Amino acid sequence: MTTPSAPSSRPLRIGMVGYGFMGAAHSHAWRTAHRFFDLPLTPVLHTLAGRTESSLVAAAERYGFAQTTTRWQDLVEDPEVDVIDICTPGDTHFEIAMAALAAGKHVLCEKPLANSVEDSEQMTAAAAAAREKGVRSICGFSYRRTPALAYARRLVAEGFVGELRQVRAQYLQDWLSDADAPMTWRLDREKAGSGALGDIGAHIVDLTQWITGQDIAAVAGTVETVVPTRPAAGTAQGLGGTGDASGERGTVTVDDIALFTARFGGGVLGSFEATRMAQGRKNAMRVELNGESGSIAFDFERMNELEIYDATAPTGRQGFTRVLTTEPEHPYAEAWWPTGHGLGYEHTFTHEIADLVRAIGEGDDPSPSFEEALHVQRVLAAVEVSSADGSAWRDVDPSAASYPTSTTPQSPTSQEST
Amino acid sequence: MTTPSAPSSRPLRIGMVGYGFMGAAHSHAWRTAHRFFDLPLTPVLHTLAGRTESSLVAAAERYGFAQTTTRWQDLVEDPEVDVIDICTPGDTHFEIAMAALAAGKHVLCEKPLANSVEDSEQMTAAAAAAREKGVRSICGFSYRRTPALAYARRLVAEGFVGELRQVRAQYLQDWLSDADAPMTWRLDREKAGSGALGDIGAHIVDLTQWITGQDIAAVAGTVETVVPTRPAAGTAQGLGGTGDASGERGTVTVDDIALFTARFGGGVLGSFEATRMAQGRKNAMRVELNGESGSIAFDFERMNELEIYDATAPTGRQGFTRVLTTEPEHPYAEAWWPTGHGLGYEHTFTHEIADLVRAIGEGDDPSPSFEEALHVQRVLAAVEVSSADGSAWRDVDPSAASYPTSTTPQSPTSQEST
Amino acid sequence: MTTPSAPSSRPLRIGMVGYGFMGAAHSHAWRTAHRFFDLPLTPVLHTLAGRTESSLVAAAERYGFAQTTTRWQDLVEDPEVDVIDICTPGDTHFEIAMAALAAGKHVLCEKPLANSVEDSEQMTAAAAAAREKGVRSICGFSYRRTPALAYARRLVAEGFVGELRQVRAQYLQDWLSDADAPMTWRLDREKAGSGALGDIGAHIVDLTQWITGQDIAAVAGTVETVVPTRPAAGTAQGLGGTGDASGERGTVTVDDIALFTARFGGGVLGSFEATRMAQGRKNAMRVELNGESGSIAFDFERMNELEIYDATAPTGRQGFTRVLTTEPEHPYAEAWWPTGHGLGYEHTFTHEIADLVRAIGEGDDPSPSFEEALHVQRVLAAVEVSSADGSAWRDVDPSAASYPTSTTPQSPTSQEST
Amino acid sequence: MTTPSAPSSRPLRIGMVGYGFMGAAHSHAWRTAHRFFDLPLTPVLHTLAGRTESSLVAAAERYGFAQTTTRWQDLVEDPEVDVIDICTPGDTHFEIAMAALAAGKHVLCEKPLANSVEDSEQMTAAAAAAREKGVRSICGFSYRRTPALAYARRLVAEGFVGELRQVRAQYLQDWLSDADAPMTWRLDREKAGSGALGDIGAHIVDLTQWITGQDIAAVAGTVETVVPTRPAAGTAQGLGGTGDASGERGTVTVDDIALFTARFGGGVLGSFEATRMAQGRKNAMRVELNGESGSIAFDFERMNELEIYDATAPTGRQGFTRVLTTEPEHPYAEAWWPTGHGLGYEHTFTHEIADLVRAIGEGDDPSPSFEEALHVQRVLAAVEVSSADGSAWRDVDPSAASYPTSTTPQSPTSQEST
Repeated sequence: MTTPSAPSSRPLRIGMVGYGFMGAAHSHAWRTAHRFFDLPLTPVLHTLAGRTESSLVAAAERYGFAQTTTRWQDLVEDPEVDVIDICTPGDTHFEIAMAALAAGKHVLCEKPLANSVEDSEQMTAAAAAAREKGVRSICGFSYRRTPALAYARRLVAEGFVGELRQVRAQYLQDWLSDADAPMTWRLDREKAGSGALGDIGAHIVDLTQWITGQDIAAVAGTVETVVPTRPAAGTAQGLGGTGDASGERGTVTVDDIALFTARFGGGVLGSFEATRMAQGRKNAMRVELNGESGSIAFDFERMNELEIYDATAPTGRQGFTRVLTTEPEHPYAEAWWPTGHGLGYEHTFTHEIADLVRAIGEGDDPSPSFEEALHVQRVLAAVEVSSADGSAWRDVDPSAASYPTSTTPQSPTSQEST
Repeated sequence: MTTPSAPSSRPLRIGMVGYGFMGAAHSHAWRTAHRFFDLPLTPVLHTLAGRTESSLVAAAERYGFAQTTTRWQDLVEDPEVDVIDICTPGDTHFEIAMAALAAGKHVLCEKPLANSVEDSEQMTAAAAAAREKGVRSICGFSYRRTPALAYARRLVAEGFVGELRQVRAQYLQDWLSDADAPMTWRLDREKAGSGALGDIGAHIVDLTQWITGQDIAAVAGTVETVVPTRPAAGTAQGLGGTGDASGERGTVTVDDIALFTARFGGGVLGSFEATRMAQGRKNAMRVELNGESGSIAFDFERMNELEIYDATAPTGRQGFTRVLTTEPEHPYAEAWWPTGHGLGYEHTFTHEIADLVRAIGEGDDPSPSFEEALHVQRVLAAVEVSSADGSAWRDVDPSAASYPTSTTPQSPTSQEST
Repeated sequence: MTTPSAPSSRPLRIGMVGYGFMGAAHSHAWRTAHRFFDLPLTPVLHTLAGRTESSLVAAAERYGFAQTTTRWQDLVEDPEVDVIDICTPGDTHFEIAMAALAAGKHVLCEKPLANSVEDSEQMTAAAAAAREKGVRSICGFSYRRTPALAYARRLVAEGFVGELRQVRAQYLQDWLSDADAPMTWRLDREKAGSGALGDIGAHIVDLTQWITGQDIAAVAGTVETVVPTRPAAGTAQGLGGTGDASGERGTVTVDDIALFTARFGGGVLGSFEATRMAQGRKNAMRVELNGESGSIAFDFERMNELEIYDATAPTGRQGFTRVLTTEPEHPYAEAWWPTGHGLGYEHTFTHEIADLVRAIGEGDDPSPSFEEALHVQRVLAAVEVSSADGSAWRDVDPSAASYPTSTTPQSPTSQEST
Repeated sequence: MTTPSAPSSRPLRIGMVGYGFMGAAHSHAWRTAHRFFDLPLTPVLHTLAGRTESSLVAAAERYGFAQTTTRWQDLVEDPEVDVIDICTPGDTHFEIAMAALAAGKHVLCEKPLANSVEDSEQMTAAAAAAREKGVRSICGFSYRRTPALAYARRLVAEGFVGELRQVRAQYLQDWLSDADAPMTWRLDREKAGSGALGDIGAHIVDLTQWITGQDIAAVAGTVETVVPTRPAAGTAQGLGGTGDASGERGTVTVDDIALFTARFGGGVLGSFEATRMAQGRKNAMRVELNGESGSIAFDFERMNELEIYDATAPTGRQGFTRVLTTEPEHPYAEAWWPTGHGLGYEHTFTHEIADLVRAIGEGDDPSPSFEEALHVQRVLAAVEVSSADGSAWRDVDPSAASYPTSTTPQSPTSQEST
């Protein structure tokens, strides 16, 4: 005789805005997190909001949402909705997040927090106010939940690298190498806010700060648009004003490449690169930390591996160790498969959702907070200011910094050897 | 105003038996496949069957099944159930699959098909008979659905490697290196049927045959139990008779290592190794094909990569090319994430389920068929016979072979250079 | 009956100054080049000059020099000596090279050309004057003669990477990670001229210019001394004034880390890093070029490999190809061993000597010329000036540039996206 | 004033027979060893012997020999010659080595020792007799002197891998993949004695025995000629009788591929492969040892690296560590360059010569002895016998074994799991 099976925990009802690439990743995570992690609440895909009725309905069916709406305000107004998940382009984050927080909804906002530092500051203030009332907010720097990177952070905290000497981070992609790759909203400053710097550079800024436990205090850099015009993709893609009215090519209004040097709060230098021009590098998000007693290196193209160097091992046996981060000792890994059976890109979202649901259920504030996201944005803004100012060093407003600076910070300009 | 969202296709109701490691992987795939692939039917997790009431109920809730039963026969008898998914140890496959096929249920049976060639033969005959009535059956060699390996097969079919010279396959694990790793049912011949040979060696036999389009015709090999006794894990784990009655160590009744040479139908030699003794190799399932005009190499520890060598390229530019198999051109990849964003282990199951649902919906027979699984089993059985006979060459019964042999097969013993 | 064997070509008599690490490498190359390459002249190790009689004599014996002298001037004055090979620290290059050129001796001068731009300018003028009289001069950027890098240059010239998008170069070492690694002359600005920037950064500046065929036109950067004092190594090591008089630690007067961005003459951006703080990186001299149609990547820790990416290949087959640069098609490789049998560090010197001897024998001017070395030095000097000036962009004096700039150069400060 | 430099140690006069690929490598080593290692004797290139006057004289000049002879017997008869270095094809080793030993000359004989086990047995007996009179003999398994492999041996001896579980060795080349690659003497059984098995398989047999400290006691294998005829290279290449009289293709009389399983004296199984059919593998000589507490892996295509796995490290930090074997702690490395500056193929010979000269100077017997070489040959012969006998297990004559067998050897046929 078969017996009916009943849900074990209270539902957490999700209203999601946007259903593109991020919508697919987030909805998979909402469906999956409680299947592999023990969570105090069970996510339910309540309502999907979007602009275009026809594709919205198809997406809702595909992703498993029970209903749809073409007004995101419906989510905010619906007393049943517990969480607003913002998966739209950056130019809409501010309005949606402010309304959601005001309505007492928990908010998951994709990065960037907003397209301007000013908007981000207001959102951060609103999140802080809402937090007082038990409303949780998180910004979607999902790469933090890669097991290898979360393990890297733990190793640093345990003292594995010792005194930090240097940070090196690159995010290399190649989809703009071809001068005839078409325009998209990501190349339109109005929509995207920034180019390689904000889209992918943001991740390595967030990650290096989080892993080292040090905020970036100053930067000097250069951002550049290598290919300034591209074939307009047509009105169907909604390029609007960025396409050339007479037909042919639209103007790229964001950067293709960003190169900058950063000074961390503890005094150490970091070199950063974000580019969409690195032919052959598909998603090479690389982070390397060098310390007096060890090093750690990561490349997202091999996301299940972490390279670690232990300078305290016997000299003859030293070298970079390729750790497969699929052991029960590695963050998140125990919930999944046996050792050596790797995870994929979407697991970073599933882990993010699991942590967020736990935080909501247990009344904690999840991380990355809006403050953390704001500080990332200030770093990126400082890079742009530096670039416009001949690449000179520029301090980053420290008011949203998460980590204490060292007692003897090194000023950016007094460190030269001459 | 929100609008309700409705399912787009007819349901396909799943009854699953077993809820261990494979149950977790299969149920995730059943839940996920239609979220990323366009399928003619929508899988519904109908009923989960298992022996132990308490853990069964927890698993059903975790995996998302609507009901449970402690009698797998209920699934067979329930007219609502469309598919029986068999995720139990090998010793139970025969009984369940035979009943399911007789009842006209589609069957997904985890590998090995059964614990004996004889049982497999009967199951294959039953599947062939059921096929006449539109009942579909498939054996779960899920690794075939790794995009890199499916792409390898396509490359071979396109002539990339040219005339095949040699095959090399290894499946290396290390969880038995420690002489004090405990007994499990996988080390008990009664339950598991075989050790490294059947559990992991089966995969590389299936894959090399499928990728090359050639069946193995003869083998010569050695299987061995390196560590013959292990700490008994206690009665809770159900070791039963294999544990030493007086308490301490149980007898391992399956092999730890299997080494064999194979002759493929086209005449080419292959070297095979399956081991659980390769310290540091976590899940190194490796396949390499060498041909006159190119080579292909794969390692599951880097499942998103395929190494290919094009011997027709300009000499100075030749080398193994590390292809990230995340491009739209690669099998299954287009359904997922942007280039460079890798997939994980469970995707192999999601792809398997997608292909199976399509086959059921479209009235096709999915692959690997029970015939293919039977031939794999005959290869493995021939290895054991060869090993018992001093490692001498042994022909494999060709009656379940899938591929035509070459017109000028090379006999195993006439190829020596002397 | 045995028959005496006679030399086939005229001798080229070498006088060498200095017998440390570089002396060992150069003398090996002088002894070996004509054994593997067909050369118009046969090098003869004539006289070794050095300061300390006892170790000088041992070195001469070890290296195979026929005589020794403690006055390097003897080499200049000896009419038998054809070539002066300068292997001493940078502070002595000027005096020796000027005298040698004045005396009509061919000169091989180790890099850096001199410790100041001013000295280098004079040496370059002297070399230019001597060139008129058939006297040859070369600066020892030996890494150019790594087969993989020479092949990289050929690929670029053949159009393999297409329109250049970006340059990335790192020279990572770790011997100063330990805060208690002792002082050496390389950390003393008086002797060494510069630190990581000049010692190892110089190589990647030279290589990227040479491979791309573009000079660096402007730079913006930061140099830094991470560990400012180190245990004095004692007077025996001749640290002199840099050691703390009271005994304990000496002051490091050169940089440990140099980070800079460069604008090449054709307009493309390059990111550069030279460091001795990269724990675990032993000699990771890395160069990567990204172009519209392909990429090239190299790491000296795997000096027999070149990674190339062909963006014109079928999409599904694209990836970085690991080329073993041991084929007859690869520069210098044919003189050595069968394919797959790698070369080592000292081969770069043997190739350099082979090319130099050929140039002398055939009346050609070898490369890198003193002009090229001067331009490298100007780039490095501009980095130091930029660093002292808050990291702002700084133009490089173009008067010693080797390559034509593009007709539409991009100015460093007008490329930002904002 | 210059001062003449005088040699510091007594000369060791070398007579070499043969001047092909091996002659080039050996003569480089004889010229170089005392330049980097402290040796009790100084090698002098005394006389080169060869068949063809014209090329012989050119080779002597190129390699630096003082005289030449077309009668190798001259070397044996010349009282000045101290060492006979045999670099000819295998079919001539017996005659030359026997004469040399009888004349009291030290002998360095390239591998294989001879083309038959019988000849090798006589040579071994002659070497043993000569040893009583202080005459030294060594067989040229030069790969042992790769720093990474010598370090592997040390690690095993120190207990790094613990109880050995498994051995895996491959020597993969690809120069016969092309069916139209021409005949050479290496494909003629009369000259070469054996094919892939003897030419390259010999190395991995020698290495695994030496590194593990265990002799191979039994084998089961298959050898095969995949491409049985090839274009005759013409009489100029001296193919003689092997070319087809009517013109076109000669018959290959040696194997292209050898696959075998071995039982080591301590009971452990090893899998071996030697092939010239592995398209894209240029010189992939790979050795891997798996033990209870660690593993070691090596690939000659990256000869400056050793991969080691420490199973006693904290679980989360375990992984294969890529050791650059260029530290002073690594065998032979201290004599060369700073850390991270790799060595090349010819260094294995330079190290071999250094060890041989030390052994001669200090009155020690160098290794590998002729006994060791004989045992290797017996292993290879047993593989051929096994192959001809349907691949059945075959014992290896233990009379030349170097290492004690374990007290509880495991017989090859009683280890199956069934």
